Amino acid sequence: MDELVLRKLLEGIHAGDIAVDEAMSELKGWPRHQSGFANIDHHRKLRTGIPEVIFGENKSSEQIIEIARSMLQGAYVVMATRVNHEKGLAVCAALPGLEYHKQARIIIGNKDKIVMNQGRGKVGVVCAGTSDIPVAEEACLTLLCLGHDVERAYDVGVAGIHRLFACKPLLEEATVLIVVAGMEGALPSVVAGLVEAPVVAVPTSVGYGTGFGGVAALMAMLNSCAPGVAVVNIDNGFGAACMTAAINKK
Amino acid sequence: MDELVLRKLLEGIHAGDIAVDEAMSELKGWPRHQSGFANIDHHRKLRTGIPEVIFGENKSSEQIIEIARSMLQGAYVVMATRVNHEKGLAVCAALPGLEYHKQARIIIGNKDKIVMNQGRGKVGVVCAGTSDIPVAEEACLTLLCLGHDVERAYDVGVAGIHRLFACKPLLEEATVLIVVAGMEGALPSVVAGLVEAPVVAVPTSVGYGTGFGGVAALMAMLNSCAPGVAVVNIDNGFGAACMTAAINKK
Amino acid sequence: MDELVLRKLLEGIHAGDIAVDEAMSELKGWPRHQSGFANIDHHRKLRTGIPEVIFGENKSSEQIIEIARSMLQGAYVVMATRVNHEKGLAVCAALPGLEYHKQARIIIGNKDKIVMNQGRGKVGVVCAGTSDIPVAEEACLTLLCLGHDVERAYDVGVAGIHRLFACKPLLEEATVLIVVAGMEGALPSVVAGLVEAPVVAVPTSVGYGTGFGGVAALMAMLNSCAPGVAVVNIDNGFGAACMTAAINKK
Amino acid sequence: MDELVLRKLLEGIHAGDIAVDEAMSELKGWPRHQSGFANIDHHRKLRTGIPEVIFGENKSSEQIIEIARSMLQGAYVVMATRVNHEKGLAVCAALPGLEYHKQARIIIGNKDKIVMNQGRGKVGVVCAGTSDIPVAEEACLTLLCLGHDVERAYDVGVAGIHRLFACKPLLEEATVLIVVAGMEGALPSVVAGLVEAPVVAVPTSVGYGTGFGGVAALMAMLNSCAPGVAVVNIDNGFGAACMTAAINKK
Amino acid sequence: MDELVLRKLLEGIHAGDIAVDEAMSELKGWPRHQSGFANIDHHRKLRTGIPEVIFGENKSSEQIIEIARSMLQGAYVVMATRVNHEKGLAVCAALPGLEYHKQARIIIGNKDKIVMNQGRGKVGVVCAGTSDIPVAEEACLTLLCLGHDVERAYDVGVAGIHRLFACKPLLEEATVLIVVAGMEGALPSVVAGLVEAPVVAVPTSVGYGTGFGGVAALMAMLNSCAPGVAVVNIDNGFGAACMTAAINKK
Amino acid sequence: MDELVLRKLLEGIHAGDIAVDEAMSELKGWPRHQSGFANIDHHRKLRTGIPEVIFGENKSSEQIIEIARSMLQGAYVVMATRVNHEKGLAVCAALPGLEYHKQARIIIGNKDKIVMNQGRGKVGVVCAGTSDIPVAEEACLTLLCLGHDVERAYDVGVAGIHRLFACKPLLEEATVLIVVAGMEGALPSVVAGLVEAPVVAVPTSVGYGTGFGGVAALMAMLNSCAPGVAVVNIDNGFGAACMTAAINKK
Amino acid sequence: MDELVLRKLLEGIHAGDIAVDEAMSELKGWPRHQSGFANIDHHRKLRTGIPEVIFGENKSSEQIIEIARSMLQGAYVVMATRVNHEKGLAVCAALPGLEYHKQARIIIGNKDKIVMNQGRGKVGVVCAGTSDIPVAEEACLTLLCLGHDVERAYDVGVAGIHRLFACKPLLEEATVLIVVAGMEGALPSVVAGLVEAPVVAVPTSVGYGTGFGGVAALMAMLNSCAPGVAVVNIDNGFGAACMTAAINKK
Amino acid sequence: MDELVLRKLLEGIHAGDIAVDEAMSELKGWPRHQSGFANIDHHRKLRTGIPEVIFGENKSSEQIIEIARSMLQGAYVVMATRVNHEKGLAVCAALPGLEYHKQARIIIGNKDKIVMNQGRGKVGVVCAGTSDIPVAEEACLTLLCLGHDVERAYDVGVAGIHRLFACKPLLEEATVLIVVAGMEGALPSVVAGLVEAPVVAVPTSVGYGTGFGGVAALMAMLNSCAPGVAVVNIDNGFGAACMTAAINKK
Repeated sequence: MDELVLRKLLEGIHAGDIAVDEAMSELKGWPRHQSGFANIDHHRKLRTGIPEVIFGENKSSEQIIEIARSMLQGAYVVMATRVNHEKGLAVCAALPGLEYHKQARIIIGNKDKIVMNQGRGKVGVVCAGTSDIPVAEEACLTLLCLGHDVERAYDVGVAGIHRLFACKPLLEEATVLIVVAGMEGALPSVVAGLVEAPVVAVPTSVGYGTGFGGVAALMAMLNSCAPGVAVVNIDNGFGAACMTAAINKK
Repeated sequence: MDELVLRKLLEGIHAGDIAVDEAMSELKGWPRHQSGFANIDHHRKLRTGIPEVIFGENKSSEQIIEIARSMLQGAYVVMATRVNHEKGLAVCAALPGLEYHKQARIIIGNKDKIVMNQGRGKVGVVCAGTSDIPVAEEACLTLLCLGHDVERAYDVGVAGIHRLFACKPLLEEATVLIVVAGMEGALPSVVAGLVEAPVVAVPTSVGYGTGFGGVAALMAMLNSCAPGVAVVNIDNGFGAACMTAAINKK
Repeated sequence: MDELVLRKLLEGIHAGDIAVDEAMSELKGWPRHQSGFANIDHHRKLRTGIPEVIFGENKSSEQIIEIARSMLQGAYVVMATRVNHEKGLAVCAALPGLEYHKQARIIIGNKDKIVMNQGRGKVGVVCAGTSDIPVAEEACLTLLCLGHDVERAYDVGVAGIHRLFACKPLLEEATVLIVVAGMEGALPSVVAGLVEAPVVAVPTSVGYGTGFGGVAALMAMLNSCAPGVAVVNIDNGFGAACMTAAINKK
Repeated sequence: MDELVLRKLLEGIHAGDIAVDEAMSELKGWPRHQSGFANIDHHRKLRTGIPEVIFGENKSSEQIIEIARSMLQGAYVVMATRVNHEKGLAVCAALPGLEYHKQARIIIGNKDKIVMNQGRGKVGVVCAGTSDIPVAEEACLTLLCLGHDVERAYDVGVAGIHRLFACKPLLEEATVLIVVAGMEGALPSVVAGLVEAPVVAVPTSVGYGTGFGGVAALMAMLNSCAPGVAVVNIDNGFGAACMTAAINKK
Repeated sequence: MDELVLRKLLEGIHAGDIAVDEAMSELKGWPRHQSGFANIDHHRKLRTGIPEVIFGENKSSEQIIEIARSMLQGAYVVMATRVNHEKGLAVCAALPGLEYHKQARIIIGNKDKIVMNQGRGKVGVVCAGTSDIPVAEEACLTLLCLGHDVERAYDVGVAGIHRLFACKPLLEEATVLIVVAGMEGALPSVVAGLVEAPVVAVPTSVGYGTGFGGVAALMAMLNSCAPGVAVVNIDNGFGAACMTAAINKK
Repeated sequence: MDELVLRKLLEGIHAGDIAVDEAMSELKGWPRHQSGFANIDHHRKLRTGIPEVIFGENKSSEQIIEIARSMLQGAYVVMATRVNHEKGLAVCAALPGLEYHKQARIIIGNKDKIVMNQGRGKVGVVCAGTSDIPVAEEACLTLLCLGHDVERAYDVGVAGIHRLFACKPLLEEATVLIVVAGMEGALPSVVAGLVEAPVVAVPTSVGYGTGFGGVAALMAMLNSCAPGVAVVNIDNGFGAACMTAAINKK
Repeated sequence: MDELVLRKLLEGIHAGDIAVDEAMSELKGWPRHQSGFANIDHHRKLRTGIPEVIFGENKSSEQIIEIARSMLQGAYVVMATRVNHEKGLAVCAALPGLEYHKQARIIIGNKDKIVMNQGRGKVGVVCAGTSDIPVAEEACLTLLCLGHDVERAYDVGVAGIHRLFACKPLLEEATVLIVVAGMEGALPSVVAGLVEAPVVAVPTSVGYGTGFGGVAALMAMLNSCAPGVAVVNIDNGFGAACMTAAINKK
Repeated sequence: MDELVLRKLLEGIHAGDIAVDEAMSELKGWPRHQSGFANIDHHRKLRTGIPEVIFGENKSSEQIIEIARSMLQGAYVVMATRVNHEKGLAVCAALPGLEYHKQARIIIGNKDKIVMNQGRGKVGVVCAGTSDIPVAEEACLTLLCLGHDVERAYDVGVAGIHRLFACKPLLEEATVLIVVAGMEGALPSVVAGLVEAPVVAVPTSVGYGTGFGGVAALMAMLNSCAPGVAVVNIDNGFGAACMTAAINKK
């Protein structure tokens, strides 16, 4: 423990066991070089409340396996996001105890180490169309791993707005709302106009042509005329969940 | 008349009055050259149902006055669009009988030559915020000049969606709807999800930052998840009115 | 019925059967909650005149089959758009009675439930080059499913403008024109300068380099100097057909 | 008071003082059309916790004065944002009791109606450079009007990162952090890597050339490698404050 | 032959062999609908000096074969551009007498119908790097098919500018210069600063990252500080050759 | 003369007058250093056929006056382009013998030094709308200064295409066509489909919204489906004239 | 001094004058909170070799005066960049001893505190056109303030490339080259192809239309086909000078 | 050896063994056309200090083999960059003595001809995340081939900034720093704020959505608020190494 190490050093000086010059050279670079901490940021959980997570997109199965194997020995739930089907199967075959969630493209391990009940209330995860569900699910699973309760309301886009009104109880009850939409990305504005809870908006790459892979939805969300909306990167269900966990934390 | 000219030529050849080589050179370029049409497109009204209109943006007061003066002698209503306040006053001072509409930035003359009752039904002009009203008014005045009935519903944006529902009678009654919105441009999608009438969507440059002068709203409208929406250029209330007049024409 | 429900509530208070506090909590969220509408928007046909259609792009064959199977039991024609060849074959193999239109990439079922003769007149579908035909066909088939008559004029782009003039009868007869073009997207401007009917312009992704997948054509269409043009998303033949059906509706 | 008005009405019915039909007609449009205030959304405070605010950017002094005068008679603090110096002076000269905050470009009225102590904790407002201060101040004043405590840490950008570390107590104590930065927009990533609290990131238009009026900063913030960040529109200090108020609400 | 057909018709009328009405109906659609070839624009060669060419990019082998077969019976050289290797082989296997040029991705037929010696002088085709050669070759082969002489100077980009100076004789002798470059696209500016001949600049998609598929090179060329440069679409060797042929025509 | 210098050097070595090391250092940098050329590129006329021209946009009246004064003593016509009205008056007041062309924003001096009759034929300058005329005039005046004959056809845009057909004689007679258009920029495609002459297309910044200051027109022109078109920068009438002069040169 | 403070603390512990707990709390945040250092980063000079500089663009004369006054009491040269003429005069009038450089838009004070002779060699500052000179001068003055020798070569753009070759001695002698260019931004590529020294490229906003305020030049420079080039922001002569000073430092 | 060849020639003249005319013809094209190697720029090493390198991206294995074979007979190390795994294996199988570095995607040959110890000091290569390593390795290997010492510090991104501080010794010791980062690209700003050495920043295409293939990172780096940063193209580890080699050269 950092503090322990520091205290020991100071007590050593105090006791005369450690010379000032020796302590000087030890302390000069501190708290930067903390021996033993590789660049795998095990410290992050303490600092930010969110453990290190494997970003699977640009990694090979072999790389994911290697990192996951070492993380499985740690004290936290293990997550790898953006793992496609093929890699997901390969990793789970190599490391027993992992489970792969195809729609959310997430691998989960050390599930028993999830600490439940981290939230002040329920998180509502709302999405506009069925094609937005994978991104919404990425958010849901991440929240569950972080110990937050989730309730889903899917396929409630603005083209048939009564479907949204049918979710009124959830909209009013949730302490935070994640709203996921592609195409024209109008849903977060409408939702934020109806509720008191903060809305974390997630544009998705669903659409074509001038959807520009989610940019149209993103721009709509950033320009929301309803206050109480903030936005994350396109398709970033994971990031929305982290933001939401930070908001909802007891 | 084209056909007459052609027939005459052929009969000339048939009669031996016109040599083959002479006819050859005459026909080689045909059907391109139709003499007699000046560049002031007086013919447009006949062809497209919409008279020539003065686009005032890049023209000086002097230029507008000169063109308007000549058009006032014609058989149609005279309109100049995108005329700022200063130019509007100057033009109206110079040419009695013109009236300047400040909010819509339109000059109208020959008002008595408007032929009323051109539409199959009423046009609904809906806008999201008060800042969108000038563009909506440009559409309304244009429609009135083209002889169509208009009913307005302003400031009914999605951030307080009950305001829109209060307009349900208009939404259901109109044969065409013009929906004007800036910022996230979500209103046309919501409206189109509620009605059978075609929706002509007009993005406005209202907003800031990532609104990019109306591009965010435009992109939202082009990506509308509700069918029955088509879009015109940013701030183009005039164009929306022309499209609507063509749609609504008896 | 909303009004009935409300009246009943008020009468209950008036009669002393319902306490003020109970009514307060009931009315606070009103008029939002209208129970009973599932998220499959069967109500859409009633509201907007256009039945729910399966957007096949991001769906697997299995998903399309499942949705189509349930919709085949309904009262309307069944359509799935943006279905590639492979998925098209798979779906039609699984569900007898469906037909796959390869060029238009559309699956059609319940064809006998198409209600013909919905239009005020004939729709003209015009395209600039042979590569634009798939998008034009998506529009044509959609219109046919919605009960509108269609006449095609293909490969009449501006580089050989006499080809367009040969279609003058169609241009003049149609009540609405869908004009499809890629590359420089100039055709809608030229057509709109010739006719009274409204022009629904569809940019296509045909082209390369600075065509930017249809953006060049889109921008040309939005900036049309001819009035009476409105635009839909790139390659969105389906959307153009819906807009057109709304316009052309008797 | 909305709730008071509603309760009074219901009690009137209950007491037999108000007839059902009379109440029907009163409630039918409710909560949309209340008396003379057109579409001014007085109901918003109840729904979303944030009162209607005047967006001053596109409004004339006269328009702001007119709206502010009517709102001053209401029950809430009155705010007008994005009011430049000239308009600010004009409005305050016309309506005694308003105060203009030059740096934040905000007008405040009915200050005595601010309800203090709305937050679960203190909000930290951090900005990177001195040029970002106006946006940060817009956020601070908005939060104060909404009843939240604010502590500022300004000019702590990443080019001299020890300045940020000097704010560690605030970073660790705040329940929410608003982080404002222009140019390369790196500050939110660094802050979010240090804290557990959610970070609401605000890109500013400070910079030049490839800063593209805040787009570079926006993109950096959307791509933050640190989880727990969400973003609002460029220069949108008001929006960040609303999001933060929703998050921090008791 | 167009002219022949027309002359024959006129002579038939003149001789009294063809009735005026018969000729009327033949000529009314002329030069648009000639016999069975739908809208294939055989008239283009007369109008613009450049025969119809098959754009192979979006066409299947089958489509190319069908069109090429019919064009082979015409009076002109047959060209198909942007034909990839696989399609090239398939088409040449199906239609003997065609030859496929792999690097230029062009199929040529009716080679004996090329009319040589169409140019006022030699065309210089210069390219910056070896990766630009395919585009340069598309230009060269097109020019050869149109009857113009070509001399090549390849791999003479500005990073080793002495290589360009070694081509000074060609630069000074050519009546037109086609300059092909990707990456920073600087070569046309340098060349145009050295010569009197017009420079047709062709940006290529060679590069990566901020090359944006040729946009960087295109923008450089459009902003050339040297007068006497005009630009065609990215990778459009064919278009550059057509422009050049029009310039160089005797 | 380069060759003379080189030969002298080699002969010096051969004769033993120059040491190898001395020659080494002389030759190492060769062929780069050619002394004697000041940075005012008086040599340009010889090299490229186009004299140095003052680009007035970013220069003060004082700077223009100073440069023009020195150039007036030279052997060529003096031109300054992009000179606004105010600067134009100031410069002409300071230097007698200059004339300012307001519409074209060009100053001309040494007019008697224009060498007429430089062209192989007449240049046609065609523009789409009246707002495009300043750019067209910049091209016309530049051509006249370079000694080429010009014929204008203005306001012949595609929205009333018969106006263009009325210019058939010019289109067919011109050896080069400059086609100027803003908004959707469709005119060059249509013109190029009608003629044999090369078309130099000039996009203008006329338009609004998605015209993006001429980018829409530029993109349309670069994507022209008609061969024989090349494009210059937005509003670059001067550049189009230089390209055209190079093409048309005897 | 940091080290002194630390050593004192440690010696205090060693001597028993400071308790471990007291030291703990002092050291816990270290080296973040160094008392006495306001956010004016006086420490920067030590860390990065470049003193804090006032970025004048978004600051009022009053703000610049206030900051400059306090910095004049320090040990370093005082610089304010991007100060327009009006502000420059106001600041210099208020604070005697400052001098304003109009073209470079820079204010300099404490000139006697410049430490000369910081560089390993001479820096060459090369620019393409006369309009680029202000940016080049910003770089030159900054370098002089940082103690580096500068030699200029202006107006040597690629349209007349012999002008560049005339600068060969400078190009070969300089230890670093700053190359400034707008429009097509080709100069850095050509220069980097000729020399061994590193090239720091500065795009300028000189140009129009598709120059996009310097983006075209920037993209050209980033895509340079010649190795040994790196780029700074548009118009960022100051940044180029700082990079160069770091490179050239003895 | 270039210099050797030249010296030999000159000595030949001096000795009277070579005639002036013979030497003239040899030297006229020099240093461009040397024997059979077309435009392969063997002279580059002399001019710029960096030998010609094979850009493998757009070349086939066959092309790389052919060029590499000829270069292996030269005097320099042979490098091919951007060679994917498949091509790498094929080339190495064909030409013994080459080695393929998979992560860096580089082929190296003539390794014994690397001249070590070219640098004034050590180069630090720092990258933000593990996905950035391939680009960082491209830089490292290139530097090693150019004879510079390299020390790596990988996976030290700003989300856990203590990891960066742990590298302080390297940051302070290096004469030049290459800083590689994707996503928000914040690392170069932070590093440049800590050190005196020049920072060559390399954006990578790591990220998704609004990362836009590295554009977000690029823009952040160009807008760095810390002086002493210059930027190369996205993923351009090779270019960063060349710039660094030029900076670090003794």
